[in-house]
Amino acid sequence: MAAGSEEKLQLVQRHVRAFPDFPKKGILFRDICPILKSPAALTAVIDLFEEHVRSHGWQVDLIVGLDARGFLFGPLLAQRLGVGFVLVRKKGKLPGTTLCVAYDLEYGTAEVEIQEDAVAPGQKVVIIDDLLATGGTLHAACELMKKQRAEIQGCMVVIELKDLKGVDRLKPHGVFSLLQY
Amino acid sequence: MAAGSEEKLQLVQRHVRAFPDFPKKGILFRDICPILKSPAALTAVIDLFEEHVRSHGWQVDLIVGLDARGFLFGPLLAQRLGVGFVLVRKKGKLPGTTLCVAYDLEYGTAEVEIQEDAVAPGQKVVIIDDLLATGGTLHAACELMKKQRAEIQGCMVVIELKDLKGVDRLKPHGVFSLLQY
Repeated sequence: MAAGSEEKLQLVQRHVRAFPDFPKKGILFRDICPILKSPAALTAVIDLFEEHVRSHGWQVDLIVGLDARGFLFGPLLAQRLGVGFVLVRKKGKLPGTTLCVAYDLEYGTAEVEIQEDAVAPGQKVVIIDDLLATGGTLHAACELMKKQRAEIQGCMVVIELKDLKGVDRLKPHGVFSLLQY
Repeated sequence: MAAGSEEKLQLVQRHVRAFPDFPKKGILFRDICPILKSPAALTAVIDLFEEHVRSHGWQVDLIVGLDARGFLFGPLLAQRLGVGFVLVRKKGKLPGTTLCVAYDLEYGTAEVEIQEDAVAPGQKVVIIDDLLATGGTLHAACELMKKQRAEIQGCMVVIELKDLKGVDRLKPHGVFSLLQY
């Protein structure tokens, strides 16, 4: 880890709040809003993401971000790396020809979409979201990338909820998380 | 307008696509995805927003962004200005005590929320979204800012759809848009 990275990580950690019983009883919700409200903490998140990309020699053509909280961090990282940002959205939000993948929710299913021309075959992508829980949405995003014949360098999240084993679900793709609970 | 701004505006304009009959017949949808995919076009958007803020002498404590596409541009502008970013979300997404405002949709109503502690009384805010249509959501966001006793410096969007007269609805608050259709 580069000099100063531990301090940056601590800064980020101090800007995550926990709310019990949200969105429903028994769930401890990790709230990232204070990170966004602190210019220094938000810069630290992007610094740490960038450091991981560079220190692992990831080649990145595009950052792919998940609707909606992946949109908060993805364009910042894309600008930092000098690459484009591509949106994965909930079904029905993107115009034009799209590719679609369904994933399971607690009750029923949902679908995520991407524009067919968003990623070219062989392009190297990093997928970004705020939080990894069971990994359902990130897994669906990986499936979209396979349909586009993209090369997934890895996934990045601010927070990983370890008990939910999302990392296992996303194998063989690696997940880099800043904070683990 | 500062030197180079006209070129930046043209760059942004070249990265907006039009899709007829989306999301339904008769609607010409303006797609901003190509802006996000172009690092230069996305930088230009933030350059032009920043230029407007500085040239108008707006004092900004916080950028307030609307779920979900305001999240694409808001954190970038906030980082550029060295201020925090605050989320206005669709109802049910934010933990803790929230303030809520309803607004009309074509059929029925929807609600937007903000965390009660997001903005302190007297703080100066700029509200950002991707597009101004009828202004329903932006108006609701302005109402949330009034509840928080914030001082609205203005609203900023990439695209304004002039026929829908959203600018009138948002008075007395001004709306700065990069492109008008």
